[in-house]
Amino acid sequence: MHPTTVPMPTLRRLPRYYQYLERLHGAGQEQVSAAHMAEVLGVHHTQVRKDLAIAGCMGRPKTGHRVAELLASIKGFLRWDNTSEAFLVGVGSLGTALLKYPGFAQAGARIVAGFDLDPAKAGRVGDIPVLPLAKLADLTARMHVQVGILTVPAEAAQATAELMAASGIRAIWNFAPVTLDLPDHITVENLELFTSLSLLLRRFSDNRET
Amino acid sequence: MHPTTVPMPTLRRLPRYYQYLERLHGAGQEQVSAAHMAEVLGVHHTQVRKDLAIAGCMGRPKTGHRVAELLASIKGFLRWDNTSEAFLVGVGSLGTALLKYPGFAQAGARIVAGFDLDPAKAGRVGDIPVLPLAKLADLTARMHVQVGILTVPAEAAQATAELMAASGIRAIWNFAPVTLDLPDHITVENLELFTSLSLLLRRFSDNRET
Repeated sequence: MHPTTVPMPTLRRLPRYYQYLERLHGAGQEQVSAAHMAEVLGVHHTQVRKDLAIAGCMGRPKTGHRVAELLASIKGFLRWDNTSEAFLVGVGSLGTALLKYPGFAQAGARIVAGFDLDPAKAGRVGDIPVLPLAKLADLTARMHVQVGILTVPAEAAQATAELMAASGIRAIWNFAPVTLDLPDHITVENLELFTSLSLLLRRFSDNRET
Repeated sequence: MHPTTVPMPTLRRLPRYYQYLERLHGAGQEQVSAAHMAEVLGVHHTQVRKDLAIAGCMGRPKTGHRVAELLASIKGFLRWDNTSEAFLVGVGSLGTALLKYPGFAQAGARIVAGFDLDPAKAGRVGDIPVLPLAKLADLTARMHVQVGILTVPAEAAQATAELMAASGIRAIWNFAPVTLDLPDHITVENLELFTSLSLLLRRFSDNRET
């Protein structure tokens, strides 16, 4: 199935299923039915079956699903089975926060180095080395890193993304509130942090007024 | 205009316009045309005019826009003119990272305290006090805080969100990969961190295969 046809709600529910299945697995349970998962997780059973089918999990009539198989299928579908090394570019306050956050490794991306235009920022954040941006191209080539996380200020985002692409980065997770203009072979995904917060506050203030 | 009818691309471009206009303002420029903004920012001028109209900015023929008026209109539209105090619940690694990130204040939400179920986490993260979750209801009532940021693990998200709602929190920015089931008067906005990363890695691996 082409990724753009995977419904977003499915992509959001699969990690939930995964966490629940991990608990079952930890407790030694080997089989589970979609109906049982639906009941525990508060999702309609038809939806659970659809989501699992999208992730390539095929249940057996009567016996249902093997927990270990479900875990492996969802992990593979979400690309969590194969951790990509990633470079983070822009070690400001947001970049620093992300460097300190270990949660991305289990979601498929392990940050192995940070880069910043300001050579004074070179050093370490936790365990992760921070290097001058001038070293990005060399290290991207040497370490074959293809995933980049872009956390520079908005006004520097386009030029920095171009530098990342020229350095060999092929997939950019963009936290800057900017629509990047890059060659087609570069995969870009925007994380809408400020848009999301603005939406919350706008909707909240409108709800209060009504 | 009802918020749900505001196009997301407009909500993403307005912060860009704002940053550019702040630079003009800082440089002492008083007037700007939509056509000039369009050229500098690489957005079609029809689109710039539409975006500005959505944000309530009306230009004058010939003279264009006053920079100060544009800044005020966009700020108000994005609800950046009126900073809400916010509580953050769940001081794990993601929550700690967000407590240390000062960027949300300029986007309308200032985190004034963190809360965690584990009383051992009580103390401070930077300048921000961290308190036991048991104090949430009391402090929400006393400080009239209505915005909450939810950064607990997925399995605790629903129960914690219910506690926040019962404590008087009316708007929840949810970072947990869980669809919350809450009363209609609670405004919820989900920040799709892992979904966004999964989408990037899925699309990238599919692009590589083709």
